[in-house]
Amino acid sequence: MRSSTLPSTFRRGAGLFCAAALLQVALATAVSAGAAESGRKSRKPQLAPEVAELQRAALAGGGAAELARSLSGEAGPRFAGSPGLARGVEWGVRTLTALGFEGVRTEAVRVPRWERGTAEGEILSPFPHASSLAALGGSIGTPESGIEAEVVATENLESLAALAPETVRGRIVYLGERMQRSHDGSGYGKTVAIRWGGAMAAAKLGAVAVLIRSVGTDSNRLPHTGSMGYEEGVTKIPAAALSMPDADLLEQAVASGRPVRFRLRLTSRMLPEVESANVIGELRGRERPEEVVILSGHLDSWDLGTGALDDAAGIGNVIEAARLISKLASRPRRTIRIVLYANEEFGLSGGKTYAVEHAAEVPLHQAALESDLGTGRVYRLRTAFSAQDAALAGELAAALAPLGIEHDPATPASGGADISPLRPLGVPMVDLSHDATTYFDYHHTANDTADKLVPADMAQATAAFATAAWILADRPALLGRVPQAPKAP
Amino acid sequence: MRSSTLPSTFRRGAGLFCAAALLQVALATAVSAGAAESGRKSRKPQLAPEVAELQRAALAGGGAAELARSLSGEAGPRFAGSPGLARGVEWGVRTLTALGFEGVRTEAVRVPRWERGTAEGEILSPFPHASSLAALGGSIGTPESGIEAEVVATENLESLAALAPETVRGRIVYLGERMQRSHDGSGYGKTVAIRWGGAMAAAKLGAVAVLIRSVGTDSNRLPHTGSMGYEEGVTKIPAAALSMPDADLLEQAVASGRPVRFRLRLTSRMLPEVESANVIGELRGRERPEEVVILSGHLDSWDLGTGALDDAAGIGNVIEAARLISKLASRPRRTIRIVLYANEEFGLSGGKTYAVEHAAEVPLHQAALESDLGTGRVYRLRTAFSAQDAALAGELAAALAPLGIEHDPATPASGGADISPLRPLGVPMVDLSHDATTYFDYHHTANDTADKLVPADMAQATAAFATAAWILADRPALLGRVPQAPKAP
Repeated sequence: MRSSTLPSTFRRGAGLFCAAALLQVALATAVSAGAAESGRKSRKPQLAPEVAELQRAALAGGGAAELARSLSGEAGPRFAGSPGLARGVEWGVRTLTALGFEGVRTEAVRVPRWERGTAEGEILSPFPHASSLAALGGSIGTPESGIEAEVVATENLESLAALAPETVRGRIVYLGERMQRSHDGSGYGKTVAIRWGGAMAAAKLGAVAVLIRSVGTDSNRLPHTGSMGYEEGVTKIPAAALSMPDADLLEQAVASGRPVRFRLRLTSRMLPEVESANVIGELRGRERPEEVVILSGHLDSWDLGTGALDDAAGIGNVIEAARLISKLASRPRRTIRIVLYANEEFGLSGGKTYAVEHAAEVPLHQAALESDLGTGRVYRLRTAFSAQDAALAGELAAALAPLGIEHDPATPASGGADISPLRPLGVPMVDLSHDATTYFDYHHTANDTADKLVPADMAQATAAFATAAWILADRPALLGRVPQAPKAP
Repeated sequence: MRSSTLPSTFRRGAGLFCAAALLQVALATAVSAGAAESGRKSRKPQLAPEVAELQRAALAGGGAAELARSLSGEAGPRFAGSPGLARGVEWGVRTLTALGFEGVRTEAVRVPRWERGTAEGEILSPFPHASSLAALGGSIGTPESGIEAEVVATENLESLAALAPETVRGRIVYLGERMQRSHDGSGYGKTVAIRWGGAMAAAKLGAVAVLIRSVGTDSNRLPHTGSMGYEEGVTKIPAAALSMPDADLLEQAVASGRPVRFRLRLTSRMLPEVESANVIGELRGRERPEEVVILSGHLDSWDLGTGALDDAAGIGNVIEAARLISKLASRPRRTIRIVLYANEEFGLSGGKTYAVEHAAEVPLHQAALESDLGTGRVYRLRTAFSAQDAALAGELAAALAPLGIEHDPATPASGGADISPLRPLGVPMVDLSHDATTYFDYHHTANDTADKLVPADMAQATAAFATAAWILADRPALLGRVPQAPKAP
């Protein structure tokens, strides 16, 4: 068996061939990784001609960044239910049509509508300071005249819970935890609890409003927004995020030891939900068009920036990946379905609606992928396959290794947010994780604009998505359904 | 002659001693520079004990950054004539008094008053986009309903002048030149012409407003402000700066080839001038208290940020330098006069008023120094001395060499903006140039806040200012007056 025939060997299915092929793949991967580390030259593992062509074309092109720049510029901010999102939907239909995809269509999604209004905040004493801050997504407004109260400052939900209610009652709670930078973005998941849960926890102790340090890693006067939660039976209080320097200034005021008074005024409010749409376009499979690989991102963005990284970049990556596959000499066996979700940021109604409306065909969903972590290179592969398809992870890893992508076989793929509703339905998932080292410098701020796109990194990500999508779509058999992972203890 | 006696040798005046000393200084400097370059150890040049003590104490402390943080936080933005500047003046008096300086006083300065008001701008077509922009300092407002017009985009004043008037008339001119980053900040001087002269040049061609790309080096949605000019007899038109990403978006719209319409609304206006004050504090000299070395910075700032880099950093550097000199066992011969100027940013009335009001004693001003280029290390010495004092430059260079400061003997010192009115009066000048590599990422934007201060770099800068101020103040003879440099051809 020559290694150039590896992918077709795989197509013959599991068994002895497969075990032998897996070993060869593992060796090739190891050799490749070793060469990358030591800088020595070595023989590249042979890729299927289609994969090699996709990677060559993706790395030579700048299509993904250009698409992201077009969407973020032409449609602008695309918050749930906004005119910008409507422009985004139009852009999706227009773009997928112009690129020659089939079955281009919209599928209605009801999305909640929240109006940011204006946000004003100022330290009144011990020194005056007009703060740069933003209402958290979903926050109620303050009374028209604003809320003026003394600030009680603490770190996070744990330290807040340790405070005596009488020190919190009638006050504005400030939560100052700093998100830690990391290439996998894991600091976000840890720190975002203050954003989601701050208002609920503070209200339970009698606070009148909550301020948080922006959940991000920058140092700009540009506050981060994002969704926050309320709880049935708990008083709703307004919630806003201070930019990093404004959080520093509030902490400087607190550190002075003098009482800190703050005035907050938000005119945010919820409006009736409105209709938007997921946008779909397909590259129909040559043998099993009813079986689909989902390549997805989300059209919507927060309202402060133009959503270039979150998630026009992902939209660009997946459209360009599918476009490159469409340029191959022959179609893959299965359909590649591009899904541009209507609303990820504010309640996930795009992904939830898709899962409900497509329930009947979800058993024929071969796998789902989403690109939704910015402009960075893909550095890691994780998969969630059934036991019968375990070997496929190695095949993907071997095909992705030339792109410098590591394989983490120990942790199952979680899927992006939009495709997460498909996971409990057993759909196999592939995570191609973007390097997120700088992502949270811009994420959910006014700074999320097209100048932050890195075309070369997006080209590598496009190569990764095209590679995985093609392999999944061209595999002979439908993948087995994936049982839900047991909950962590 | 042992090198430890070098500074006292210099005090004996010019002549053979001085020539010999200069040679030794030059050698010591060369050895020091060579050692720094090669990484080899070498004997340090010996410093006067006072200089060694000042450098040791400055490098060990964080006083300058703490002062800058205090001023920028407690007083906040300190724009000419604003309540913040009044707080800055109070801070200056309070701080200089608390630190034990003598003759702490305010000296009245009339300052112009400009009200920023609100700034709104949006691309109307070919795609809608709400722009982040800021009125340039001194701009008139637009009519209440704003100005809506087609955009004509060009690079700078030269390319604008080459346009036919009929392509400009009735339009909004956009000037897109990008400032180049450099460690000496020289890109600013080149590019700032579009800010100062844009409205005048565009109005002469019949434009109705001018937009510029922010004159800075960042990539944030935070526009840069700064002074702009009008000209007698030329129609005043409103002027605003777009943030970098917003300038990119306007250029994206222009590049589409479709007509670009923009709406601009500014409510800026001039108000009657008001009284503010320069703040002065002194460390009186032990022998010639009437002869003074000026150590200065400016209290005022632009209104968008808290003026931490521009110029609370400079204020912190010079106050801390003087404070360290006050802690030496004995006073220097002459007075160190700290001058915290009232208004540099908006017409230089602080420095101009000082030069007029102190005209009688300016002949006894030994030298003037200003720190006004942010938080960076001092990397370069330039001087403007009379021919009779030429040797002093070498003495200063030798004393500053241990701080890693290079000597540029070829270019005369220009003095900071506030002390520039003293230059035509013959006052010797010493430039201690800060590394400005990142300065224009924050300068004149909302991002000019205390988190950008780098205490270790400021400690080095403080060491440099203390070193130079002490040497100048303790020199036996009054320095000769400096003839004005001939204008460049």
